[in-house]
Amino acid sequence: MSSHFLSLSRRIRKTHFTDRVIENGVKGFTVYNHMLLPTYFESVEDDYHHLKREVQIWDVSCERQVEIEGKDSFKLLKIITPRNLEKLAENKCLYVPLVNSKGFMINDPVIVKISNYKFWISIADSDVLLWIDGIVSSLNLDVKVTEPDISPLAIQGPKSELLASKLFGSKITNLKLFDIENFDFDGEKLLIAKSGYSKQGGYEIYVNGPKIAIKLWDALFEEGKEFNVRAGCPNLIERIEGGLLSYGNDMTIENTPYECGLGKFLQEKIPNQCISARVLNSDKIRNPKKIIKSISINYKEKIYCESVWKVVDEKNETVGQVTSGAFSPDFDKIVALGMINKDCANNENRLFTLINGKKYLTHIHEKPFI
Amino acid sequence: MSSHFLSLSRRIRKTHFTDRVIENGVKGFTVYNHMLLPTYFESVEDDYHHLKREVQIWDVSCERQVEIEGKDSFKLLKIITPRNLEKLAENKCLYVPLVNSKGFMINDPVIVKISNYKFWISIADSDVLLWIDGIVSSLNLDVKVTEPDISPLAIQGPKSELLASKLFGSKITNLKLFDIENFDFDGEKLLIAKSGYSKQGGYEIYVNGPKIAIKLWDALFEEGKEFNVRAGCPNLIERIEGGLLSYGNDMTIENTPYECGLGKFLQEKIPNQCISARVLNSDKIRNPKKIIKSISINYKEKIYCESVWKVVDEKNETVGQVTSGAFSPDFDKIVALGMINKDCANNENRLFTLINGKKYLTHIHEKPFI
Repeated sequence: MSSHFLSLSRRIRKTHFTDRVIENGVKGFTVYNHMLLPTYFESVEDDYHHLKREVQIWDVSCERQVEIEGKDSFKLLKIITPRNLEKLAENKCLYVPLVNSKGFMINDPVIVKISNYKFWISIADSDVLLWIDGIVSSLNLDVKVTEPDISPLAIQGPKSELLASKLFGSKITNLKLFDIENFDFDGEKLLIAKSGYSKQGGYEIYVNGPKIAIKLWDALFEEGKEFNVRAGCPNLIERIEGGLLSYGNDMTIENTPYECGLGKFLQEKIPNQCISARVLNSDKIRNPKKIIKSISINYKEKIYCESVWKVVDEKNETVGQVTSGAFSPDFDKIVALGMINKDCANNENRLFTLINGKKYLTHIHEKPFI
Repeated sequence: MSSHFLSLSRRIRKTHFTDRVIENGVKGFTVYNHMLLPTYFESVEDDYHHLKREVQIWDVSCERQVEIEGKDSFKLLKIITPRNLEKLAENKCLYVPLVNSKGFMINDPVIVKISNYKFWISIADSDVLLWIDGIVSSLNLDVKVTEPDISPLAIQGPKSELLASKLFGSKITNLKLFDIENFDFDGEKLLIAKSGYSKQGGYEIYVNGPKIAIKLWDALFEEGKEFNVRAGCPNLIERIEGGLLSYGNDMTIENTPYECGLGKFLQEKIPNQCISARVLNSDKIRNPKKIIKSISINYKEKIYCESVWKVVDEKNETVGQVTSGAFSPDFDKIVALGMINKDCANNENRLFTLINGKKYLTHIHEKPFI
């Protein structure tokens, strides 16, 4: 990992948990939605092993909520996403690609329905609030757009259920993936979803304000002692193994949802009110030339992909790029995600990844590693 | 400064100069428009003294350009800024607050006119491209919105003219503040403005692509040897002394342009086509209750404001906050910027800033320190 310090200022926002995160020995941060996001504590590898065995508490406050409220809120949602919103209910989160009028990805958030006229858009790393502000103002929609003081805190790892049920009661174990419900804590209601940016299972708690934030953090660590709880964060290796995409890394505003493998979430015939309908309803865009794939690279040392690595064929022609990658201790090779030309994604030809000037044999996978 | 590492990934974009910046011993970075921005080399204080005496080369690629091109580009500019655009000419940069329909600051960029139908919006730290994308799509404007591969490189410091005229000829010394012109370098045209994020004078070069980037960097260091040139970056202490505001630090989307002291740039009567006209044409918003001021604090040790410091009066009532602050070796106290209640900004009452639980006598200044 990089050996440069991150300079702090108000512009790089601290969270309600940052002091606790520092007390727990965080070593690295990244910046996500203008906010601090921890990247590792002991080491990326040590955190990885612990996440796969025990339970961790993650400060993911940087998953900011863009709150839309008002008569036209649902109308707005149908403008900004080509996904069918029929399944959007108050007890279900929904993953919705946001796509602009050119057919490109603006963000890939989860939507939480608070009421018929109020929704939270739980965003990845781009200023969705500004995009929506531009649309709402221009179309004169009756929608108020704000960023409320909501700080997601995640419980992740195989022992998440054990810890969560100690604090919130056993009914929390009834939640299915993407279910969301209110639970009591310290005399207040907390919205908790069965979700999270790992494949180890767990919950995301939508924490309302600084006071309850610290109480909740401390209670989770107190009750979690018996489960060997630790402070953690989204783990680079584990999330790549799980095939979890990262906006800004694996997809950007230069990619269509079909290139990102998100076509399965979109409507067969996208209605005209959707800003991306005209472009996305064409056959051409639905059959992209390149696509995001899980990738493995024969490379046996600790390494992280800090900017893209080129993927070439036997003739040294560029056929794609790795956008996230790290050496996996469990798989004993680099696990990666990247955008690969479709006609090279079938492993009929030998492919290589260029790392620090050398070529390493590379395989494309149909499915994530875990 | 913080002692946590910044973890790198594709999402935190490197610039065409990052390798050179690292070779030159950068120690800290921040993230700005999803891109690396150096924060110090030797130390913030050592960099500061050098900047005030010599000449530095700054990688400010993170000042991204949002390019708008098409028949409706100028119409779009009149929608997004309440500033009069009459003075916008091909040889002049113009500082334009961008304000949304609620009267709040979206960004405070400089506009560069490339042609009648093409402009660059040289932005501070927020995704202006998304805001504009939302507006252009909703209003069906004939405008293409892109982020071109343009990487501003700044020459800053009192010896900037000496260095720039060695490379680009003496006619560069005729440029007045915010003038912009093409200059020859290595057989290509480079757009250079007399501008920059310091009060020490200098230029910003709009560098077009990676090849010329490295050639230019190396030429500046070769020719700059006799002027004791060093790699540098916007210096926290110097920019506060100069009263240069930072979007995200000193002003946010929660502030109006009048609170930011930017009212002087706006039209007396803002035309209706401007998205912020209805709100900004009201007397109430033009007489804000709080305003950004230069501030000094009687505090004698090295310190940086990493999140806001509260400002209180003698009754311990909160009357404002410091949003940027650092101990200044030249002024032997903390120099700062912050938002202060207007009725407290006249120094009739004794004010104090709360730093790590202690109160320090504080003065409000009418003008920047330098």
